Amino acid sequence: MGLIIAEKAALTSGADFWHTKAVGDLPSIMVADGPHGLRKQVTDHGPAEPATCFPPAVALGSTWDPDLVGRVGAALGAETRAAGVSVLLGPGINLKRTPLGGRNFEYYAEDPLLTGVLAVEWVRGLQSQGVGASVKHFAVNSQETDRMRVSADVDERTLRELYLRAFQRVVEQARPWTVMCAYNRINGVHAAQHQWLLTEVLRGEWGFDGVVVSDWGAVADRVASVRAGLDLTMPGPDDAGDRAVERAVADGVLDEALLDAAAGRVAALVERARSHDGGDGTFDADAHHALAREAAARGIVLLKNEGGLLPLRPEGVSIAVIGEYARTPRIQGGGSSRVNPTRVDTALAEITASTSAPVTFAARGDEAVEAALASDVAIVFVASDEETEGRDRETLDLPADQVRLVERVVAANPRTVVVLANGGVVLTSAWDGAVPALVEAWLLGQAGGAAIADVLFGRVNPSGRLTETIPLRLADHPSYLDFPGGAGHVRYGEGLHVGYRGFDARDQAVAYPFGFGLSYTTFGYGQASATRAGDTIEVRVPVTNAGQRDGREVVQVYASLPDSAVRRPVRELKGFANVAIPAGSTVEVTVRVPVADLAYWDPRLGRWAVEGGTYTLAVGASSRDLRTTVTVRVDGDDTRPPLTGESTLAEWLSDPIGGELIGEAFAALLAEGGDDLASVAADPETFTFLGSLPLNRLATFPGSPLTPDTIEKLVTAANP
Amino acid sequence: MGLIIAEKAALTSGADFWHTKAVGDLPSIMVADGPHGLRKQVTDHGPAEPATCFPPAVALGSTWDPDLVGRVGAALGAETRAAGVSVLLGPGINLKRTPLGGRNFEYYAEDPLLTGVLAVEWVRGLQSQGVGASVKHFAVNSQETDRMRVSADVDERTLRELYLRAFQRVVEQARPWTVMCAYNRINGVHAAQHQWLLTEVLRGEWGFDGVVVSDWGAVADRVASVRAGLDLTMPGPDDAGDRAVERAVADGVLDEALLDAAAGRVAALVERARSHDGGDGTFDADAHHALAREAAARGIVLLKNEGGLLPLRPEGVSIAVIGEYARTPRIQGGGSSRVNPTRVDTALAEITASTSAPVTFAARGDEAVEAALASDVAIVFVASDEETEGRDRETLDLPADQVRLVERVVAANPRTVVVLANGGVVLTSAWDGAVPALVEAWLLGQAGGAAIADVLFGRVNPSGRLTETIPLRLADHPSYLDFPGGAGHVRYGEGLHVGYRGFDARDQAVAYPFGFGLSYTTFGYGQASATRAGDTIEVRVPVTNAGQRDGREVVQVYASLPDSAVRRPVRELKGFANVAIPAGSTVEVTVRVPVADLAYWDPRLGRWAVEGGTYTLAVGASSRDLRTTVTVRVDGDDTRPPLTGESTLAEWLSDPIGGELIGEAFAALLAEGGDDLASVAADPETFTFLGSLPLNRLATFPGSPLTPDTIEKLVTAANP
Repeated sequence: MGLIIAEKAALTSGADFWHTKAVGDLPSIMVADGPHGLRKQVTDHGPAEPATCFPPAVALGSTWDPDLVGRVGAALGAETRAAGVSVLLGPGINLKRTPLGGRNFEYYAEDPLLTGVLAVEWVRGLQSQGVGASVKHFAVNSQETDRMRVSADVDERTLRELYLRAFQRVVEQARPWTVMCAYNRINGVHAAQHQWLLTEVLRGEWGFDGVVVSDWGAVADRVASVRAGLDLTMPGPDDAGDRAVERAVADGVLDEALLDAAAGRVAALVERARSHDGGDGTFDADAHHALAREAAARGIVLLKNEGGLLPLRPEGVSIAVIGEYARTPRIQGGGSSRVNPTRVDTALAEITASTSAPVTFAARGDEAVEAALASDVAIVFVASDEETEGRDRETLDLPADQVRLVERVVAANPRTVVVLANGGVVLTSAWDGAVPALVEAWLLGQAGGAAIADVLFGRVNPSGRLTETIPLRLADHPSYLDFPGGAGHVRYGEGLHVGYRGFDARDQAVAYPFGFGLSYTTFGYGQASATRAGDTIEVRVPVTNAGQRDGREVVQVYASLPDSAVRRPVRELKGFANVAIPAGSTVEVTVRVPVADLAYWDPRLGRWAVEGGTYTLAVGASSRDLRTTVTVRVDGDDTRPPLTGESTLAEWLSDPIGGELIGEAFAALLAEGGDDLASVAADPETFTFLGSLPLNRLATFPGSPLTPDTIEKLVTAANP
Repeated sequence: MGLIIAEKAALTSGADFWHTKAVGDLPSIMVADGPHGLRKQVTDHGPAEPATCFPPAVALGSTWDPDLVGRVGAALGAETRAAGVSVLLGPGINLKRTPLGGRNFEYYAEDPLLTGVLAVEWVRGLQSQGVGASVKHFAVNSQETDRMRVSADVDERTLRELYLRAFQRVVEQARPWTVMCAYNRINGVHAAQHQWLLTEVLRGEWGFDGVVVSDWGAVADRVASVRAGLDLTMPGPDDAGDRAVERAVADGVLDEALLDAAAGRVAALVERARSHDGGDGTFDADAHHALAREAAARGIVLLKNEGGLLPLRPEGVSIAVIGEYARTPRIQGGGSSRVNPTRVDTALAEITASTSAPVTFAARGDEAVEAALASDVAIVFVASDEETEGRDRETLDLPADQVRLVERVVAANPRTVVVLANGGVVLTSAWDGAVPALVEAWLLGQAGGAAIADVLFGRVNPSGRLTETIPLRLADHPSYLDFPGGAGHVRYGEGLHVGYRGFDARDQAVAYPFGFGLSYTTFGYGQASATRAGDTIEVRVPVTNAGQRDGREVVQVYASLPDSAVRRPVRELKGFANVAIPAGSTVEVTVRVPVADLAYWDPRLGRWAVEGGTYTLAVGASSRDLRTTVTVRVDGDDTRPPLTGESTLAEWLSDPIGGELIGEAFAALLAEGGDDLASVAADPETFTFLGSLPLNRLATFPGSPLTPDTIEKLVTAANP
């Protein structure tokens, strides 16, 4: 680059909160917070410039619609570019390990496949506009408690299959310009200093060629971070850190090639950004609001609808709208993602505009009961305490006053619809038995009010699906015993059994399962079939809209391998399709499952491996509403670990080659008069003991037929 | 010792399977398997010499009676010494982490306090006879699957509070002659090479001054083991290993002082053993059988007794005895602990001898139904598949044919008593609804048949209590998701929540809770009170035998700290008393709880710490039958971690000294015109963010009031 060491060091930290440094000929670029809208700060602490507040990830994810997510990404990209910002800090794709996670509203799901598939399209959409994404928070940033220090202690298989999986998919398929490292530590090492994570895995294995930027304030040691593969420390300036990097190179403590690589990647990012024209500051606010409304309506999940209470007719049904949130909506959570919206719809106004019948509003308590008594239908808007970055929730319960409001209204009028606003799941089973209709409206962004009216009145037939399980009790959750940890560590004790994987493993009852959501129509499933097309399994299933309304079904495919040699979740989402089906029509839905997505991470082999066997692919409308199954035979990879001196006698004997070799070795010994051995092998208890011994250990037993020499020969012969 | 290096190296491995080497003037001593009887092998693989088969630990532990356990220990010591054996390889005190553990029958409980208190008396009793114990398997050997290699991955707090706790108690209070290291690895390191475990903790912290002996075949690397603090590798001879140790000393790879220490400890053990006279080979077999019977009867747990079906009258009640196990009893499990009993009682013969009424026996099926129909009462003996060392169980279910037998008999005669024989808990809830009386008779040793008759006919009023929870389903168990691990690792994902701690943390229903057991009488509890006597809390509670029969109650004390600053189990056993109470009498029972036993392990401080606060001590008849509570205020230790640059701003502000210092530092800055700061601190969202930042990290933010220098001054001032 023709830069001196000091200039290269300077390039690896920001100029201020939101800009890279201009160094030499290289200009500065700006980055800004996302992900559900552009938060371009005018001053450090004042309000951001107005931007469309799209639905936060909790709602966007509930659409289960990659195309729609991609369109939102593109709109975000257009606003970002128009504002002259080069990188939007999103998407947030951490796994929802615990429903208490304070930042869950910024994340998609408790499942890595769903998260990854949606985030790929978000990044593609965003980057199609000539601005970069920043996939965050890399990695295992699934809680806010002690987030700057806590070590997420998680085994490699769980890391690979769950917590890194969505990152891998996005990096490999969408090539994001940047990845943002997390605040926390992973197995004791700060993400910002995690050489294995930032260099070996991210770049070496996944081929990431962009910039790794720190989360704001995540860097504790500049030199260690550059060494690990972190390119850009934010915010800046950090003159002392720049000097420390410079000195480390001069002292030979830090390889200059590593600094060259980091600075070079920052420079390449700047050049990539500058190759796109800057914006003129304008975007089509109306069109974006309409898209925000479409996405919000599609993210709403209808949890309950007894007696077809919904949709409401636009005439002749008087309505009591109850709860302050109908008038003063919660559209997003707190923290760095908070957008200054271009405008805000309210459910109260939109409901009023949707019907010719009388609408009465009551903010709370006594007036609410009167309004409910006097109306045909009551719609109660309740919300959880506000979720925010920086703090995990302490409960999954709605605030007690909200529950009381629901109970009083439903007692006054049994035709009550409850509309929930919350960034993470709330428990419902204590009070929803008496509620005929329950609408999970999450945090929906600036057009949520209109979107809610769209669903309530059936202008949109709801098709949102849960991306996380709603449990019956917090204590049932797989993460419960180990969250939020203490003394600087949180053990990911449930391992692979995150979310529905854990509920299914223990066969526990839940309130509403992963993948669940009702429609105003009903869908029937025919028999699924599967064919192999190259490296992909194509699952086909005819799905019929058996009702009177057009609707969308989210067809989900879950894989199991009942006779697996390794422990696995009972079932795992491996593909899905979001299809519009006209009333009365049947559509043949195809879901493609790459065979590679059936792989598990084998820590003995240090790689992904597809186990050979007969997989069950169950197809249905939720993780617990599986309508049809098909089995597919997969040959799989060679997952036999090499036989060594540390392999047990039983492992040798169960291997076709190894068993024969051991047999020969022992036969030779018996021929030499070792009849003692025959009596040993004939005693099942003794054999249980001997079988568990590694050969090397067996060799240390008095009278053992094995010596280091014979073992070496056996190993050579067994691994041709 | 005046030995050359080769002689010292030779001393650190055995002469054969059961003897140490004679070296120089030092004679050889013999060791033999235990723990519930002496297994003195005459030949390597033939039957052992006859010895009393006392109840295995599963039943002995269920007595909850330290005195009785001590008497059994003394009897075992007498037999051991009589046989000229110097060390009996027991007790086994690993925690029952999973009910599937194949060797659970050799261990006491899912609770470390109960395990430790009982094992202390066992060791004292044994060693009172001039022979040594070998406390095993050190440590975290709670499964048989892949036991030679598997790494038990467990955090330090869990290790200290659960898996090491009983070892610590026994070492500190009973001073065992030897400790036996386990086969498995702990956090990646073989127990036999675990310097931290064998030297720092065992000897350094707990003051162990005896010999660490390997489990048979546990040593993979002799040099590494001697370096870690392992003294005696068994079995021997291991000439190659001896030479490797010798060479390592010669090469300077192994500090000769470490070899001196190991050889010296082996020599000291031999001298300690030889200071006691050898035995003449005889012991009072009748007296020991009587003790085995007493202990067995006391270990039986009466789980169910509807309508007072039990005890049976010794006349006028005709009995059908059903099931082969009544005639051919299971008295112990498989593996190294298998004793060749001096004689074996059968329940069939003992029942027949206990009544003047007709007794019919049917081994199985059709005859069983006829016998049950023709008798006043049916007693069905069923058993689990055999438990054995070397293999974990695959199910908690009784074999299907056993369940069918129970169902057929109880259908034929509702006055049916089921007697269970099993080394680990079996599930009962699928079939015990129809069974009025259920007797958990474990594995009871050679006098079990008589002991069962003693309980059935009320000659012994049952007082055994469960030492592990009987769950409703295997999938409910805290260990379920993480057992038995794979790829060489098992994650102890439930952490502190082992056994009842986990069921209570999740408030799960169970079939029969920890500590549970019925009596033929009933006990009433008065109000508990607590007084402080020095370092001990004395809990007193009046307990009344409200029935017509003399009986024993096991009064259990569980502690909680509701407002603890650290996550804790809901309640933990902290003391118990086993008291005989005559019918109609009231006894004031005293349970002593050392304040030190309220400590938790603080990994930040690296030590045990008693947290100050108001503890609840709940007193009752089981972990879920708590009759009376008392609270005690405990001042506690200083558990405030030192404030450092890695402490967060919120931690500084919440500390009285730290908060004041930070206030002063920021005030000075504000005085210099940093009004920006005031606006930042006034914004709750920003404060949530800033509060989570360690001071060192805060210092890297642009415009931060903190520098490395000011932080250093603050730290100095905050930790006077």
